[in-house]
Amino acid sequence: MAPPSIVLYDAPNATPESWAPNMWRVRFILNYKRLPYRTVWVEFHDVERALRSINAPPTATGRDGRPVYTLPALVDPSRSPSNPVILCNPNMIAEYLEVTYPARPVYPPGSRALQSIFVQYLMDVVLQPLLPIMVPLTYSRLPAHVRQHFRGGPSIPSGPHRAQAWEAARVRFDQFAAMLEKNNAGDGDGVVAMGRELSYADFVLVSVLMWINRVSPDDGWIQVCQWSGGRWARLWERCTPYMNVL
Amino acid sequence: MAPPSIVLYDAPNATPESWAPNMWRVRFILNYKRLPYRTVWVEFHDVERALRSINAPPTATGRDGRPVYTLPALVDPSRSPSNPVILCNPNMIAEYLEVTYPARPVYPPGSRALQSIFVQYLMDVVLQPLLPIMVPLTYSRLPAHVRQHFRGGPSIPSGPHRAQAWEAARVRFDQFAAMLEKNNAGDGDGVVAMGRELSYADFVLVSVLMWINRVSPDDGWIQVCQWSGGRWARLWERCTPYMNVL
Repeated sequence: MAPPSIVLYDAPNATPESWAPNMWRVRFILNYKRLPYRTVWVEFHDVERALRSINAPPTATGRDGRPVYTLPALVDPSRSPSNPVILCNPNMIAEYLEVTYPARPVYPPGSRALQSIFVQYLMDVVLQPLLPIMVPLTYSRLPAHVRQHFRGGPSIPSGPHRAQAWEAARVRFDQFAAMLEKNNAGDGDGVVAMGRELSYADFVLVSVLMWINRVSPDDGWIQVCQWSGGRWARLWERCTPYMNVL
Repeated sequence: MAPPSIVLYDAPNATPESWAPNMWRVRFILNYKRLPYRTVWVEFHDVERALRSINAPPTATGRDGRPVYTLPALVDPSRSPSNPVILCNPNMIAEYLEVTYPARPVYPPGSRALQSIFVQYLMDVVLQPLLPIMVPLTYSRLPAHVRQHFRGGPSIPSGPHRAQAWEAARVRFDQFAAMLEKNNAGDGDGVVAMGRELSYADFVLVSVLMWINRVSPDDGWIQVCQWSGGRWARLWERCTPYMNVL
């Protein structure tokens, strides 16, 4: 009998398909490390119930003092089927997978801190202009019966406001590409964040690209492929072997 | 006759001593690579005249369209005394020194892009709360005859405002330390940014520490040495062999 495999808890959109960047971050690592796993789909309004039922830890405490449960969740029974490892923070999941399954590493030696700062800069600075367009688009793509559990939030920018939103995002992505190009003089391949091999930073970044691809396939995604001299399209292409959903 | 050595243009404070983080960033690299150099001191109000006189390039264009000249400037006549290399942007100087003098490298292989993002995150996020206290303190320490060339700017926070300013800076430095501690589980030494050897990121960070040490020796510096479990004091200690002013 095959050993019980890793389980990834993910939330589908209306298609249904995997779209959320935090879930893809974990999925890319699992695929890159060639670890067998299966997906359990949990709709957003059902996350707390599902995670409490498997004794998953909360990831934060809300302003009202209540625990907050978020996806992704990873359950790994490989080492101890009766007492599986259960983790819910994507950075902690990445660290756990790297330590537990060190083959095909995602952190080049000595680079964890700089990889962490890369992710923080991406979140705090680079992605900020993307949110006013991507958050409402994401909401609109959730299944109708999930949407009704959440307030609508801001509406999708339209007409010139929509074009301006994508343009603001492009400017920030171009600035980020200029930083990544510091590697070009012999210290990189013009695609990945460190040297010539994919690493955690790339999987975090391509997970954002996946989010745009899934949520705005006919508009944002077509533009993003043209941004920054095609750098993001090249990263996407490089990561296609790791886009399976098991 | 010894070959002509590298010249670093720097601006003194009233003591006089070298205090500015952008100048120290270059100085640390020169010292770390054990490159002989000498310092030419230029007071702030005299920077444009001094740099134009050696045909140094401007580093930016002002809102009025005029070229902007800034320190540090590095002149390297080693390869061609009659046509020396002249650079004024600290990142470009670092890159030049690394390529021209590759012994004792400051960029681990494949890391230039992530090092660049480290610096950008430091500038855009980590250091922001430091500016309301450090900028007026810096101004107050310029020589009186230099200060008169510039507007005074904001005054030095006093009493509880001063304590609040340092506390706001401490919170951000602690958050940054938590990111750097990602290396602690076997991927670093708890002192440097990458692995176990000093690199460009460390020299940029310790140059900020030097700025605080020089500008607020009896107040800010004493506090900073206690912040983040002593992490910044350990980095300072580690870098003391490279604090010469030649």
